[in-house]
Order: sequence, then structure tokens, then C-alpha cells
Amino acid sequence: MIGFEIIETDGEARAGVLKLNGLEIETPVFMPVGTNANVKLMRPSDLENVGVNIILGNAFHLMLKPGLDVIENHGGLHPFMGWKKAILTDSGGFQIFSLAEGSKVSDEGVELRSPIDGSKVFITPEISMKVQKVLKSDIAMVLDQCIPPNVDRKIVEEAVERTYLWALRSKKAMEGSTQAVFGIVQGGTYRDLRVKSARQITSLEFDGYAIGGLSVGEEREKTLNMTEVTVEFLPKDKPRYFMGAGSPDLIVELVGRGVDMFDSVFPTRLARHGAALTWKGRINVRASKYRFDKNPLDEECDCYVCKNFTRSYIQHLLDREEVLGQMLLTYHNIRFMMSFVSKMRKFILEKRFPEFKEKILSVYEKGVRCE
Amino acid sequence: MIGFEIIETDGEARAGVLKLNGLEIETPVFMPVGTNANVKLMRPSDLENVGVNIILGNAFHLMLKPGLDVIENHGGLHPFMGWKKAILTDSGGFQIFSLAEGSKVSDEGVELRSPIDGSKVFITPEISMKVQKVLKSDIAMVLDQCIPPNVDRKIVEEAVERTYLWALRSKKAMEGSTQAVFGIVQGGTYRDLRVKSARQITSLEFDGYAIGGLSVGEEREKTLNMTEVTVEFLPKDKPRYFMGAGSPDLIVELVGRGVDMFDSVFPTRLARHGAALTWKGRINVRASKYRFDKNPLDEECDCYVCKNFTRSYIQHLLDREEVLGQMLLTYHNIRFMMSFVSKMRKFILEKRFPEFKEKILSVYEKGVRCE
Repeated sequence: MIGFEIIETDGEARAGVLKLNGLEIETPVFMPVGTNANVKLMRPSDLENVGVNIILGNAFHLMLKPGLDVIENHGGLHPFMGWKKAILTDSGGFQIFSLAEGSKVSDEGVELRSPIDGSKVFITPEISMKVQKVLKSDIAMVLDQCIPPNVDRKIVEEAVERTYLWALRSKKAMEGSTQAVFGIVQGGTYRDLRVKSARQITSLEFDGYAIGGLSVGEEREKTLNMTEVTVEFLPKDKPRYFMGAGSPDLIVELVGRGVDMFDSVFPTRLARHGAALTWKGRINVRASKYRFDKNPLDEECDCYVCKNFTRSYIQHLLDREEVLGQMLLTYHNIRFMMSFVSKMRKFILEKRFPEFKEKILSVYEKGVRCE
Repeated sequence: MIGFEIIETDGEARAGVLKLNGLEIETPVFMPVGTNANVKLMRPSDLENVGVNIILGNAFHLMLKPGLDVIENHGGLHPFMGWKKAILTDSGGFQIFSLAEGSKVSDEGVELRSPIDGSKVFITPEISMKVQKVLKSDIAMVLDQCIPPNVDRKIVEEAVERTYLWALRSKKAMEGSTQAVFGIVQGGTYRDLRVKSARQITSLEFDGYAIGGLSVGEEREKTLNMTEVTVEFLPKDKPRYFMGAGSPDLIVELVGRGVDMFDSVFPTRLARHGAALTWKGRINVRASKYRFDKNPLDEECDCYVCKNFTRSYIQHLLDREEVLGQMLLTYHNIRFMMSFVSKMRKFILEKRFPEFKEKILSVYEKGVRCE
């Protein structure tokens, strides 16, 4: 049910097509995050209108609310949320990092605290896979142990070993499923542990491979180095997914290192904070200098928001705390991300990727991130 | 620039067409409220998609924020908010009621407290008309003095007199304008003062007439009686607008008494509180009984929300405080109001209005309002 074809390369950068249950998704691809069965402030029709083909859902959050019974009653996450295109579901591994406080990890699984009511939730590879089967996502992620940056080597070694054992069990639990399954490489910022994890995970032959445990607070230099080290040990013919990258400058660096897929709350969260992504960089629309600015958010953008509203109007909405302001910014920012990856792909096809990369890095200050 | 044609009547109920700057607006008509240059949680394209032809803007709020300079810079409220259909602007008269605390009324005008920063704002008929000229609304309302229910006759008498003087000055200030101007009848719940006010205001020959100062907390019986009294003294060939009615049961009662136009925050506010308007009455979508309900909000509804989402899904969004839940409810509720007035018009054309009225009153409990 999954296929991947590389159309062209420019250096390490790849322009490809991900074939997923009848959909053809051009790569590099950006996946907006829909944690609670919706991409915040976007209706499914809005997502389709801005060109989104695949979004990310989250097994851990959805098993808590609305609960599997409700989603099973609808026949999966697609019909539940009225989304007809592709869904990749995360396993809950990231929550081992983001909800670390009060969590207990053992080889068996992880005990987490529900962010909703503080109750204990036990997740094993088998439970996560069962949840993702009910969600009927197009791509399921194995359960992995995501760790914080700059921790002792001993902890990273353990996490790498556990991530391998959990990948084995995840794969076994998904046997016979028509869902694609991606493995996840860990290894912190230790070069040899990244290599070890990549070798272990790729030996299990997944449909695609994710680079996990990066962009979690470590220096940008390390993010990029560790990506390089990992990619070297991933098969060329499978899609590569860097988990949790959303800023244009980071994505362009990672595409230049051979990564194909990205997800992040970056464009939607930024919108809710009043900022717009443009081809000239990020702008804070709340700033008073836009009060009389009759230009669209981005002159080069073709979206509904840029064709119909001025910066001045959107600033007014933000100033009055009218949620429509955040809605319009979210719509534009996701459209921007779609245009961004699409244009990047065009440059790869034309073997002009370095030119594109330079342009993006010149306007998106390195390290300005919001993941 | 304004014309009004009555196509059919059934008893006092009228089915008409309001011709406004090239637009043909069928009446009875419901106008969603867009106080701060937006209808909350609705993009202009959403409003068009659900069939909205005219919305209400507010002179008082807009002169404070974003300020007239910003709107003038865009050439009016339509281009500022990206809305191509009609706009009726209220004068600020309702704020004399809603922002009564700290306000001072004299024949010259009214001093109000800004709800934004508490500063003093002085409004006269001339100022209100100047503001509405800058807004370039299709219909401007005269400045009137809206008073609370059940106050001393003396106060009502003064308000009626002042409303007349202000109507005169408003009319004079709008001389030469291509905007339509509506007069407003006051008179509280005193039959003779309503008659007096109606006679005074209609003597000034406006493009349409509003019934003001009702549905502000008085008993339903009085609302209806006073409307009857007022309508009797309004010319048959001009549109009649009841200010601030939004619940289907109240609107159907008022249409049955000869009113053509309505506005209210009712459907949008209700949505933000988690309730949906349906042909079987109002439902609280937060209720746990909808957890597994795979039905649309309303089985008879043709809107995007009802075609794509279940009550179960919307309940989940509301439960997780995802604003998309309120967005979907708002979209549906405004669509419901459009279908409601459209169906009511069909019944009037078929001389079956009483049948429609009975049906609505049987499912919308009398007095359940949210204005």
C-alpha cells in the first residue's frame, strides 16, 4: 500500500513521490500536526484548499480523548475527522520526552501521566500498534524511546537498545496489517550510537525510516551532524522522515542532507502567536508598523488570505483578539509551507537546490524555531 | 440606491425583495452581527457559502478600533474586511443601553465610556453619521436613544423626543449621501409613546424603519404588543427592521406581525457556547448523550458541516476546547438561520405561513433567547 520513487536528486537533496493508498504525495513533504483529531483552526476543506495531502495524528492523545471506542465507532480517524487524504500517526514515543515528568520507562513499556487528568497510562509497543490499527492511519510509527538532549551516554545506550526491542515488537504487532510502518532511529547526539541504532532499525526492513530524538533542544550544529550520520545508514530507496522540524531554515538544511518528510506545529503555533511566514522571512503582524499596511501578508502568495485581506486588517483582528485573525494566519502559514516544499522540489528537479537553500537561509535566521 | 418590493403577504407576514446597490436581498432576512469588522469565526467566503447577503457592522466599536483612519485608508468597511455583499451599520444608539454605566446623555449627544480603555467618547448624530459615511455601509442607522425596559414614563418621553431630534439631525447630516438611511422608533413599552415616536420618525421619510428598544429584557408579551403597535404606524412600502432578534421563535412571531429584517449575535454566540440550532430545536452538543452519535448536527441541513461531521466529532472538539468545534457550530448555525428565513419566505409565498409558525414554535420553546 506504500511506494516511494525518487524522481531527481541534487547533491543529497531528493525530489520524490510517495504513493500511499492511491494518493501520490510529492516529496519533500510537510505534514501539519493534528494532535486532537484536527489541525488547529483549519477545517479539512481548508487543508485541502491549501494543498495538504498528509497530516499527522497522535496515538497517545487520541486514545485518551475521545477514546478508541468513539473512533472505532466511526471506522477510523479519517471518517471521524472528515479527512479524506493521508494520515501518519505518531506512536506516543515523543510523549516519553514531552511528558517525561512522572513517567516511568521499562523494557515492557512506559507509564505516562495523562495530560488531561493526571491518571496513569501504560503504553507498550503492542498497545501503541493496536491504537494505530484502530485509527487506521496510512502510516503507523513504531514505539520508540525519545530522550532529552545532552544526557549521559549510559541512558542513550539503554534507549537505543530499548528502541530496537520495541521496534521488533511493533513490527511483529503490525504483521498482516495493510498500514505502512516506519521505524525510528534514536541515539541522541552520539555518532556511534546513531550508527548502531540506524543499523539495528534498518535491519528490520520497515516501509520508511524516521530520525527521532533530534530538534529537542540540542544545538543546531548537532541536529545537522546527527542527521548526516543517520542518513548515511538509511536505505536510499525508502522515505526518510525527520520528526518535529517545521522552520523553513531547518527543513532546507535537512532536505540538503537527504530527508524527505517533515512535521511540526511550527506554522500553526506561530499563527496563533500572531506571526506570518513569508518569502521575505517571518513577520510579527501585531507590530504597529503594519497598522496602515494595505499589502497582503506575502506579495508572492496565492492563498485566499493574501488575495483578500491586508496586513492592516489582520492586525486589527489580532488587536481585538478576534480568533479570525489567528484563523487567517494559520491558513496562510500552512499554504506557505505547502508552497515552500513545492518550490524547493522544483529547484531540486532543476538541479538548482543550493540556490534555493541560500535564499531561504538568508531570510530565515538560523535557529529561530518554534517547534 | 435602495428599493423594496413586496412579492406576497400572508396575513401580516411579508415576502419581499430588498434592492440594495445592485444586490437583491430576499426578505425576511437575517443579518449576522460583525461588530469588530468580522462575524466571529467566519471568513467572508464562509458567509457567502452559507448564503449571507447582508451583515451588520457597528459604528461605535469601529470608530474606537481600528479607528476611522485605518478604515478610510482602505476606502470603507467592505474592502477593509474583504466583504463584497451588503452591510448595515448601527449608529451607536444601542451602546447607550448596553454601555449605560458611566454614560451621560444630553440633547447634544451622548458621552460613553470606551469598553477598550475606559476613555470618554462623545457621540452626536453628526459624529455617528460621519463615521457611517467613512464606513460606506449600504444602510446607515440614525442615532437613537435606546433605554432599558420598565423605566419611568418621564425618561421614556424624553428619549422619544430626543430620538426624534437626533433623527432629524441624522437625516440632515446624511443629505446628499448615496447610502440608505433608516429611522428608528423608540417609546419603551408605552403604547402611546410608541405611536408618537412612529408618527414622528415616519414623518421624516426614511428609506426604512427600525423598531428599537425592544427585546432588551422586557416580557415576551410586551415585545410582541409593542411591535404590533409600532408596525401599524409604519408605511407598508418600506422595509421594517426589528433590532436585536435572533431566536427562531421570536423571529417567526415578529414576521407574523409584519417585520422584514433581523439581526442578532444569537446564532454565533450560541455556537461559541456549544449549542446548535436544528429543525427539531436547539441542542447542546456538549451533552454526553452525543458521544457516540454519528448523525449530523441536523439531518435536514445541507451545509458543509452537516455533510462532513458527526455530533460525536464536534462534541470531541468542544470537549478538548479545540476552537474548530466552535467554528463548525458557527458555520452551521448561520446556515441554519439562512435556511430558516428562506423556508419561512417560501411558506409566505405559498400562503402557508401559520403552518410554518406553528412548527417553529413547537420546537423552539418560547422565551429561550440568547440576545
